[in-house]
Amino acid sequence: MDFQNYFPVWSKLSAAQQNLISGHLMSRTISKGTVIHNGSMDCTGLLLVKSGQLRAYILSDEGREITIYRLFDRDMCLFSASCIMRSIQFEITIEAEKDTELWIIPADIYQSIMAESAPVANYTNELMATRFSDVMWLIEQIMWKSLDKRVAAFLLEEASIEGTDKLKITHEYIANHLGSHREVITRMLRYFQNEGIVKLSRGVVEITDTKKLEELSDQ
Amino acid sequence: MDFQNYFPVWSKLSAAQQNLISGHLMSRTISKGTVIHNGSMDCTGLLLVKSGQLRAYILSDEGREITIYRLFDRDMCLFSASCIMRSIQFEITIEAEKDTELWIIPADIYQSIMAESAPVANYTNELMATRFSDVMWLIEQIMWKSLDKRVAAFLLEEASIEGTDKLKITHEYIANHLGSHREVITRMLRYFQNEGIVKLSRGVVEITDTKKLEELSDQ
Repeated sequence: MDFQNYFPVWSKLSAAQQNLISGHLMSRTISKGTVIHNGSMDCTGLLLVKSGQLRAYILSDEGREITIYRLFDRDMCLFSASCIMRSIQFEITIEAEKDTELWIIPADIYQSIMAESAPVANYTNELMATRFSDVMWLIEQIMWKSLDKRVAAFLLEEASIEGTDKLKITHEYIANHLGSHREVITRMLRYFQNEGIVKLSRGVVEITDTKKLEELSDQ
Repeated sequence: MDFQNYFPVWSKLSAAQQNLISGHLMSRTISKGTVIHNGSMDCTGLLLVKSGQLRAYILSDEGREITIYRLFDRDMCLFSASCIMRSIQFEITIEAEKDTELWIIPADIYQSIMAESAPVANYTNELMATRFSDVMWLIEQIMWKSLDKRVAAFLLEEASIEGTDKLKITHEYIANHLGSHREVITRMLRYFQNEGIVKLSRGVVEITDTKKLEELSDQ
């Protein structure tokens, strides 16, 4: 198995710890659109992405969403195993944004190894610090950047992830990422279209002036 | 010294590790209003509060603030030593909100112990998870709670911390905590006053109807 190539502290584990993980590791293929974990469900385990794309978001009581972070190849998701730390007092939902291959390390197995292994505990610390940095960035965006800049930054990020300027996304999809409403996003995109920055058609937002979009997003 | 009573994993350290910390520990008394750490300064070290109150906040380019969390007796501040983890990619400012006695553990000392001690690394994990939960709560507040609810929740929190309903705070102070503007807060407080919830006088916000305020804040 090539799990060991994806798990950075594998070589720091004892033979017994390596066997423990190998013996309990689960491999899964998840279809695009599937919700893998949601806050109210059981402690799913740690997810290590082999290939694909996951999105972690929070949900309001009214069903509004906001994307907290995304996970790509080689990324590991800690908060799908929030039971491993009692101080994790929030709930996130994780869904596959693309068809995704991943490994699941059961939470209790990971927890027992983390308790005795300084390298694994420190690796976990770095993972959490990375997500923490994502979330701090998000707060700054929400508090201090106006929505036009956030939409611009989001379109640029999507174009970069997808490797194309012709984005197959709905206005609803953008609203869900940014914690906004579809109507508000539609209005903003029409304004962008009038400015010659994007071209809108059914289910597609095409970036026609990347430079202007970059200026707008302050990047 | 009574540091060992304040540091939860002290008994899990080796004698050598205990000596290392004892030999480098600094004790400080900080006056109210002092900025102890700001993002652009050097890596201050880990702060362990003996008594007093600290506030951690972020600053926008335009000088607007938003409070991320507060630290009270026995709390430890990790992000004043952000150099101990390379994945911490954000800057916070920490100031004393009250006269505060604290210990400083130099960042390099803590880092060297954390690298070899699973208990210290796991304790650090729990600390970070606690702050992460604070920040996730904050995002939900910002995204999904209107400002009236946030001001109400803030006044109740202040009353609880200070043990009085007669709060000696300026409108500017509230605005800085909530990432808002003074004018906006003043308008909101006048509305509260008209509703009979608070009474305003120079430098004082007095809560006159706690029940109504609690209903408003959804608590």
